[in-house]
Amino acid sequence: MNGMKKVEVNDLRDFIVEVFEKMGCTLEDSLQAADILVRAELRGIGSHGAMRLVEYVNLWKNKRVNVNPDITIVNETLGTALIDGGKGFGLIVAPKAMRLAIDKAMNVGTGWVSVRNSYHFGIAGYFAMMALDHDMIGIAMTNANPLVAPTFSKEPLLGTNPIAVAVPAGVEPPYVADFATAPIARGKLDQKFAAGLQAPEGLLQNEKGEAVTDSDILSKGGAIKTLGGDIEHGGHKGYCMTSIVDILSAVLPGANFGPLVVPTLGYLAGEKAGEDRGIGHFFGAIRIDAFQTAEEFKDYMDLWIRTFRGATPVEGQSAVLIPGDIERVSEAEKIKYGIDLPEKVAGGLLQISERLNISGKFLK
Amino acid sequence: MNGMKKVEVNDLRDFIVEVFEKMGCTLEDSLQAADILVRAELRGIGSHGAMRLVEYVNLWKNKRVNVNPDITIVNETLGTALIDGGKGFGLIVAPKAMRLAIDKAMNVGTGWVSVRNSYHFGIAGYFAMMALDHDMIGIAMTNANPLVAPTFSKEPLLGTNPIAVAVPAGVEPPYVADFATAPIARGKLDQKFAAGLQAPEGLLQNEKGEAVTDSDILSKGGAIKTLGGDIEHGGHKGYCMTSIVDILSAVLPGANFGPLVVPTLGYLAGEKAGEDRGIGHFFGAIRIDAFQTAEEFKDYMDLWIRTFRGATPVEGQSAVLIPGDIERVSEAEKIKYGIDLPEKVAGGLLQISERLNISGKFLK
Repeated sequence: MNGMKKVEVNDLRDFIVEVFEKMGCTLEDSLQAADILVRAELRGIGSHGAMRLVEYVNLWKNKRVNVNPDITIVNETLGTALIDGGKGFGLIVAPKAMRLAIDKAMNVGTGWVSVRNSYHFGIAGYFAMMALDHDMIGIAMTNANPLVAPTFSKEPLLGTNPIAVAVPAGVEPPYVADFATAPIARGKLDQKFAAGLQAPEGLLQNEKGEAVTDSDILSKGGAIKTLGGDIEHGGHKGYCMTSIVDILSAVLPGANFGPLVVPTLGYLAGEKAGEDRGIGHFFGAIRIDAFQTAEEFKDYMDLWIRTFRGATPVEGQSAVLIPGDIERVSEAEKIKYGIDLPEKVAGGLLQISERLNISGKFLK
Repeated sequence: MNGMKKVEVNDLRDFIVEVFEKMGCTLEDSLQAADILVRAELRGIGSHGAMRLVEYVNLWKNKRVNVNPDITIVNETLGTALIDGGKGFGLIVAPKAMRLAIDKAMNVGTGWVSVRNSYHFGIAGYFAMMALDHDMIGIAMTNANPLVAPTFSKEPLLGTNPIAVAVPAGVEPPYVADFATAPIARGKLDQKFAAGLQAPEGLLQNEKGEAVTDSDILSKGGAIKTLGGDIEHGGHKGYCMTSIVDILSAVLPGANFGPLVVPTLGYLAGEKAGEDRGIGHFFGAIRIDAFQTAEEFKDYMDLWIRTFRGATPVEGQSAVLIPGDIERVSEAEKIKYGIDLPEKVAGGLLQISERLNISGKFLK
């Protein structure tokens, strides 16, 4: 592919492990962080993959993150916990929180863990999928820096706040929904702007709240509209969705909510007044056999998947997709043929390799 | 108001109680059912209020519902339960399920109850709000008959599947989101059709999957698109949302999912083959003080609400709203001034009063 650098999965993984170790993370944590970032690359979600390393290294260089965070349980019941992430990387805090949710579900049917004082955790789907091997439904969500304007608001107050839900099936591959609750990601807008393209109608507003298609509007005080767009198209339902994620992920654990969340790079400037509580996450695990037997459920989920996959597609489309289909195909291909990193991303990693004195041979 | 019949809240409530008692429901269940329908009217959600009585009476006349259902716990853990609604009215089954979720949350931090073999349960928000008095976050969702076409599908496979989330606050009134996950309700399309109006662009498709604005398209084999519309506008995220509700509400408890759900009136025809498992619901209660103290949380939630309410509105709007604001204002007004029933709805109730030999004087 043009402008792409193909790398082997294991080379990339080893490199990322070394980066985290060089920053002072334990081997175990480094392996975990690398696994999440590589999984994002494999699943075709490069925006949450290796390119984030530059940001992580900057956070570390500026001493804004604890590489060996004191991750503590602030409060817990048999089925819940509130975790303080100790200002650690989300990639290190989040898997521990999800594991705790799974443990709790073993005992009382479901487990729910909310987290504060954490950072960007990568793809939400990774954590939701951790539940699958335990015959559980996994749920993961996080808040993020404000880019989305609630219905009627001029100002962006909400993040693109993703939700992931992973549901085990029997013979069929699992259902894995992993989606920002906003209609378009900042990364996609940046791509459009770089290509000289406008955004689709109905997704963006300028600093006055007027509808625009300028794909660079976020840098000019504009905002992304909620999923659905205006009220006539159900945009208030998108506002509900995205704000629910903010409340569960941030108000419940006491993290920075909506407009109090500072963009990672802006955060480095240290301009924000007041107490910093990091961003927040919310994880859930639902044990299938707390309801039906796992076998009954999986058979029925297979029927669900087949019913939807078997529906008649519209003209020009070959099939109705199940959430997770595209990512699963991507993963199988990339494990076999390697990962294509955009040259800009490969260049960023190369700079890190020089800065931290790690071999970046595979990137050249 | 033109074409409207104003009724006193208590007159309407007493009437509905009598209708359910005449059908053979216990006084306790009748009071509960009436409370839900009246609450829908008060909150300005007439589509889920008194007008549904006609349907309920038809279900009863055709012996398709058990007025004294055997509501059983099929399976439970400390934090969860699967309930079989015994083919009872959702208005009777659902409050018991939500109460059980709240009880479980008292003990282990959260409670989650899924329900099968139930019917239409009214407004989801009623059940979510039951948690508020216990300093809990309440969650309620249900699946419904298929009107919504998944991304790329010609066929409607999903219901408008509502979600409600109620969050307690301190000085501020609570946050209450209660919304169909589809961009527009069938009732609103019917209103547009009756008024000779087209639907907004981007919400509907015909039987070939082509974009249309015909507000009568559902009766011609068409479908509502998912929230967001096409892929460019994030419609696949709406598909994720609506399908998650279907899976949690119906696949998890073993109710009829998506296309297996038969519309209430269609259902009367008894055309559907196979085992009937009714529709399904999913309820959750999250105890605030399993995370932070209720006081800390409520203070912080007040700050969230004030921050959003205080954001600068776009031109032509007076304020950014908090989910639940409109319904709360409606409720206060109607408690004071009474409820305006459309004449068609009042006429339907009058017919029921004659059929069941109940005084319908207040409707004349």
